[in-house]
Amino acid sequence: MKANQTVKFKNKPVIIGSYSIVGPKEGKGNFGPYFNYVIKDDSFGEDSYEKAEKKMLVSAIVGAIEDAKIKPNDVNLLLAGDLLNQIISSSYAARNFNFAFLGLFGACSTMAESMAIGASLIDGHQFDTVVCSTGSHFCTAERQFRFPLELGNQRPPTSQWTVTGAGACVLSSRGYGPRISMATFGKVIDFGIKDVNDMGAAMAPAAMDTMMAHFRDTDTTPDDYDLIVTGDLGKLGSEILIDLMEDQGIKLGLNYNDCGQMYYTRNQNTLSGGSGCGCSATIFNSFIMKKLRDGEYKKVLFMPTGALMSTTASQQGETIPGICHAIVIESDVVNNKDEDLKSSKKQYKIKKHK
Amino acid sequence: MKANQTVKFKNKPVIIGSYSIVGPKEGKGNFGPYFNYVIKDDSFGEDSYEKAEKKMLVSAIVGAIEDAKIKPNDVNLLLAGDLLNQIISSSYAARNFNFAFLGLFGACSTMAESMAIGASLIDGHQFDTVVCSTGSHFCTAERQFRFPLELGNQRPPTSQWTVTGAGACVLSSRGYGPRISMATFGKVIDFGIKDVNDMGAAMAPAAMDTMMAHFRDTDTTPDDYDLIVTGDLGKLGSEILIDLMEDQGIKLGLNYNDCGQMYYTRNQNTLSGGSGCGCSATIFNSFIMKKLRDGEYKKVLFMPTGALMSTTASQQGETIPGICHAIVIESDVVNNKDEDLKSSKKQYKIKKHK
Repeated sequence: MKANQTVKFKNKPVIIGSYSIVGPKEGKGNFGPYFNYVIKDDSFGEDSYEKAEKKMLVSAIVGAIEDAKIKPNDVNLLLAGDLLNQIISSSYAARNFNFAFLGLFGACSTMAESMAIGASLIDGHQFDTVVCSTGSHFCTAERQFRFPLELGNQRPPTSQWTVTGAGACVLSSRGYGPRISMATFGKVIDFGIKDVNDMGAAMAPAAMDTMMAHFRDTDTTPDDYDLIVTGDLGKLGSEILIDLMEDQGIKLGLNYNDCGQMYYTRNQNTLSGGSGCGCSATIFNSFIMKKLRDGEYKKVLFMPTGALMSTTASQQGETIPGICHAIVIESDVVNNKDEDLKSSKKQYKIKKHK
Repeated sequence: MKANQTVKFKNKPVIIGSYSIVGPKEGKGNFGPYFNYVIKDDSFGEDSYEKAEKKMLVSAIVGAIEDAKIKPNDVNLLLAGDLLNQIISSSYAARNFNFAFLGLFGACSTMAESMAIGASLIDGHQFDTVVCSTGSHFCTAERQFRFPLELGNQRPPTSQWTVTGAGACVLSSRGYGPRISMATFGKVIDFGIKDVNDMGAAMAPAAMDTMMAHFRDTDTTPDDYDLIVTGDLGKLGSEILIDLMEDQGIKLGLNYNDCGQMYYTRNQNTLSGGSGCGCSATIFNSFIMKKLRDGEYKKVLFMPTGALMSTTASQQGETIPGICHAIVIESDVVNNKDEDLKSSKKQYKIKKHK
């Protein structure tokens, strides 16, 4: 029996294409210049925000397939999920494509869940080319999980802002691009947080659990990665994670950050930062992918986090369980451009900086 | 590129354990004697039906692990989903276990989705032992998707009765039991049905699409299977499927049936039959598993179906897309008990009755 939670891929799947699409507010945030497309208004030309969210997912999937320079018929499978009840954005988006579909629910950890399963299916030779996608929308999330926007409720300082955006990437058994070398499958962890306006605190213990499992299973340390990035713990949650890891004897340094914390500028008034499936999905499929493609990042530990509650569960007094899956992505760019072609075989042997 | 939707497993995963738990009404249905446990009342000792649904899932997972004669620590991963918003039954059930979790949403097709992914992860050597599970509850589904029970609404003849029940099975790379030899991953198919009281009609086209893909990819015909069983098309939906298949030139005979259609007795007044994730999950993990273990069924094509709508989507005038995944399970029992041990190697070569 395998005692650990981490899969090391023998046939490291290649990310041959990626795409990100975001709302206007997100376009004005810290990663604005990196996104492929910024929609002009939150309705994206649709008559409901739910339909706008679905349209963003369709755009991200189409964009990633085009970026991969393949045809839709080359795709075997779509793995997608979102925050809406019965993941309608993903299911209805899948209607537009002539390939098989696996619907997922990992809340805001979905980008990692789809990549972990997708990479496994390619590594196991079951499929050649899959698309992984997820997204979220501020307006659909607010009205489903919290209050109708029209109420104009005040937001507590711990609350986060659901990112309006969708991201997608194409994984393949062949081609050029960053490669997925490992995935750590997370457990459901519940530390008893009940405040639905404090998701960062609810998810931080899950991030710690998966991070500890990852370092243990792979015999690595934070120094082995150019970037360790959690999904949407936000300002507060990422500080809790740093504390929790310190309690475990591991110090997270300047190479650690959180997508939610980084997403918006200070004057965008998002309190504890960004959240939602689209938060880590759009940063990964724009900024992080660019840095990996450019060789600026050699090895990234990507750790989207999810809070698994529903309004019904909260109303029945349940606490909020969290989950976090971790994906290791390695650049295919060789450091020294003058090296001969043979050296490219060594490109995945990243130097340890212990 | 692989052109087809079907994966043929090289290392056929073994179903080493299974368990089913159902509500009182289900216990009085046609499969009553086959279920492992019948709860005495729908609340299962909990203060909400949602908590009862979660408790049934936990019971099914524990029961399947016990049936497999392994320890919880031997399990690497749980793959589960359900109908409730944000799949709370599965996520909250996963909290009770110390293994990794992948949350799925395939509506009532979830038993097949979890088995398709689980079998792939074992076939690909990523994990050794996984648990696949799903469930549903009449009372939680009615109040979430339709009307509060207290209203006492009349039900149209096309409507189906959500099964109160949960099923689970343990898949492993080793051990004894029926084996999963193939999985056909379904596409999202939408024929424009809008009536949420006519799910069978909405899902039948997806069942047809996956069945055609399966026969095409595997070069088999209905005669190659002892049992072809869809999930919860119900009386009406399964007749539509038979018609649709006939239009495609394929005649489904007496070896075809539908879990929803078979579930309840005529005088249980469930109109078009059973439905819900628990419908196919409890029949598979009781009756069908027993017949496979006894060698009475040699080869089964198990095809749970899902309707992917939400109340929000319906309220916004959307049609109901369907999905269906197909799993082939083969018995490990040799026909002639006097044959020597060597012949057991041939046991999966089922004779074609063309």
